Amino acid sequence: MGRRHDTVTFLSDLGTTDERVGVVKAVVRDLAPHAQVIDLTHGIAPFDVRAGSLALARAVAYLPAGVVLAIVDPGEGTSRRAVAIEVAGGAGVFVGPDNGLLAPAVAMAGGAERCVELTAADFHLVAPGVDGPGTVSAWRDVFASVAAHLCNGVDLDELGDPVEAELLLPGVVPLPREEGDALACEVLTVDRFGNCQLNAGPDDVAHLGPRVRVTAGDPAAPGGPTVRVATRVATYGEAPGGAIGLVVDGSGMCSLVLDRRSAAEELSLAAGDQVVLAALGEDDRGGVTSPVTLRTS
Amino acid sequence: MGRRHDTVTFLSDLGTTDERVGVVKAVVRDLAPHAQVIDLTHGIAPFDVRAGSLALARAVAYLPAGVVLAIVDPGEGTSRRAVAIEVAGGAGVFVGPDNGLLAPAVAMAGGAERCVELTAADFHLVAPGVDGPGTVSAWRDVFASVAAHLCNGVDLDELGDPVEAELLLPGVVPLPREEGDALACEVLTVDRFGNCQLNAGPDDVAHLGPRVRVTAGDPAAPGGPTVRVATRVATYGEAPGGAIGLVVDGSGMCSLVLDRRSAAEELSLAAGDQVVLAALGEDDRGGVTSPVTLRTS
Amino acid sequence: MGRRHDTVTFLSDLGTTDERVGVVKAVVRDLAPHAQVIDLTHGIAPFDVRAGSLALARAVAYLPAGVVLAIVDPGEGTSRRAVAIEVAGGAGVFVGPDNGLLAPAVAMAGGAERCVELTAADFHLVAPGVDGPGTVSAWRDVFASVAAHLCNGVDLDELGDPVEAELLLPGVVPLPREEGDALACEVLTVDRFGNCQLNAGPDDVAHLGPRVRVTAGDPAAPGGPTVRVATRVATYGEAPGGAIGLVVDGSGMCSLVLDRRSAAEELSLAAGDQVVLAALGEDDRGGVTSPVTLRTS
Repeated sequence: MGRRHDTVTFLSDLGTTDERVGVVKAVVRDLAPHAQVIDLTHGIAPFDVRAGSLALARAVAYLPAGVVLAIVDPGEGTSRRAVAIEVAGGAGVFVGPDNGLLAPAVAMAGGAERCVELTAADFHLVAPGVDGPGTVSAWRDVFASVAAHLCNGVDLDELGDPVEAELLLPGVVPLPREEGDALACEVLTVDRFGNCQLNAGPDDVAHLGPRVRVTAGDPAAPGGPTVRVATRVATYGEAPGGAIGLVVDGSGMCSLVLDRRSAAEELSLAAGDQVVLAALGEDDRGGVTSPVTLRTS
Repeated sequence: MGRRHDTVTFLSDLGTTDERVGVVKAVVRDLAPHAQVIDLTHGIAPFDVRAGSLALARAVAYLPAGVVLAIVDPGEGTSRRAVAIEVAGGAGVFVGPDNGLLAPAVAMAGGAERCVELTAADFHLVAPGVDGPGTVSAWRDVFASVAAHLCNGVDLDELGDPVEAELLLPGVVPLPREEGDALACEVLTVDRFGNCQLNAGPDDVAHLGPRVRVTAGDPAAPGGPTVRVATRVATYGEAPGGAIGLVVDGSGMCSLVLDRRSAAEELSLAAGDQVVLAALGEDDRGGVTSPVTLRTS
Repeated sequence: MGRRHDTVTFLSDLGTTDERVGVVKAVVRDLAPHAQVIDLTHGIAPFDVRAGSLALARAVAYLPAGVVLAIVDPGEGTSRRAVAIEVAGGAGVFVGPDNGLLAPAVAMAGGAERCVELTAADFHLVAPGVDGPGTVSAWRDVFASVAAHLCNGVDLDELGDPVEAELLLPGVVPLPREEGDALACEVLTVDRFGNCQLNAGPDDVAHLGPRVRVTAGDPAAPGGPTVRVATRVATYGEAPGGAIGLVVDGSGMCSLVLDRRSAAEELSLAAGDQVVLAALGEDDRGGVTSPVTLRTS
């Protein structure tokens, strides 16, 4: 037997408008009544493996020991592997599809120590069929069931065939790109308040100074990108009235923000869009906002 | 005293944008601190008893022993009964309005064994009024409170007057209808990914062969219904590039699906819409998609 | 040491489309594994302190003993205080920003008995920074962490500097205003079903009789306000076919409702809008609905 776990932290793109997330929790409750399920989020856009992997990576440092169940699985029913990955000397086990979803969080938790493909059908549920077993729903019949069995102390080795950690699909972590003195970034995520998290940390932007030219969106788009000046601020509330702020957010990344308004709306930005940050030239002072506002309205 | 329960599985149309679902859980926590509440879903469309009953029926085989609390209650405050229904030798108790919401799930759990109308006010909360008791909110003052008392071992008989199981309102389960060689189905539900679950199982469509003509929507609608060819596939991912697949889904029902896209959008389908499935004639091969696509665009 | 707590009831405007609410729960689970988190709602509109305070006030009578964590915090990172407020002889502790969010619920729980500003960094998390501590995210690093430490029995006095209860920011509770015989009210909240809760109790409207003229919306608006007759009814289902009902709702407040339809849609009302209630004159009987319907269509 392996180590028992008390907590299943659960992220998915299943949404909460139907019963599926509830069924996962019911399965865990039924098989491992002592375990608590913590919902991380189920609002990841359908099939958006990248957004799921980023949310998981932002959260991982705060998760309690136990099982981490992550289901964003556009390849369900294809040949993509279902896996369990042990980290931190067995204190944590990630369960999910091997499609890059788990990779950044696993890396931040110290890297994969043992991995198995979830091939042992003894630890899966049998789907309802007319005459015998029906179509497997991996989220329920494989992932939820295996998460519960892990809580009960089933060892990773019992769950299937070992997989070399090097053979797991890596995550896609976009890096910012230097373009002369400028930095071409990507919007990682837009939160509910319209804050735009970039794939750049404070070190990446340190050389740009206290005021930064922000070129948001595709330069080739009709009407061109939106150009604004952002001010480096320490907190959201410090962004000067109506002006874009550039903060180091709670994940340690740079975010474009507005005080009590949506920066994403102001800059017409969505996850995946390009943002170029550049030092503000002498002649730029104060002259950027108005002409561009005219051009984009 | 009756049997104690540790779990309340909770489905409703209350949504999560205000505090009501949380108040139900707070009431259970307050009265029965040992009980865990599992949220099945609260995203059932307001007053949609049918959608609630289908979600509950799809989930019921996976629920842990305990209380099942289901609240979709357009008749709150009218003469509809509030009931508790015991199943499976007391292992499960359904609590909710007697409006058909519980019926399919109760049937799948083996049928009602004991039923009571929730008339015993001792087990209800008293709503806040200006001078004494105020207006009863059944979701909170009756259903949440009774669910908690059931967890504490209050016997069904104490909760109110017995009701004959035969007098409970039946659920509305639409059956597919044979029209010559064709099968007239109904869309039971459209999930977050746009998969369209039909009211037909694999046996119902077995005689139609590996490729099926799908006539989606009202034949009398302006522009006519959408007609496509669907291919029988074993998994979502097997649907050939861009073509509709017909799978047996994880509930053992037939669903129309597209690989990583919304079949509901492609076919303009919503819950309750008609879909006619027919065997594909010799002369239909390959000739269905294009003219129809022109007609509907 | 102070009293230990087993429950954290949690309300916020953080939404559930990203991982933040889950991270708060993960932090509590990690630091205080014995504590249960009850989600009251996370659907408060971004930065809507008033809506959050009203939801909390409606719920407070039903909450179990323990910690109440409330986060609607447009001033995060500014000089607004983060506080913990003890009520009911220590049976409850409210944790959140001192911006009026907590005030109505604290008052309904008997008033603040001890308050502290959360200045003791020992009980906060350290945000990830490049070289040492990063930017504090109060929702996670202060509020979630302090809620967990309170569950573990840390006394209020250890969490920071005492604050006089009189210096806490009061809540904004709008009162109805008498205008001659009429009552000028405000819509406090519109729920998922379109019911419109007013800031008036049954005593406020008792003198208006069984049928009430409802003038909904701004009288100066183009097209004018919507005028209807509402009938005093005891339950939602009693509202006569298609007509507006005025009920005392489950919070003991007056609500405008329609049977199985949205009163908010019918009356074009949203939270914060004005509604004037007046006794119906002799000559008004039955003649109000139709001309107004014409005027507003």
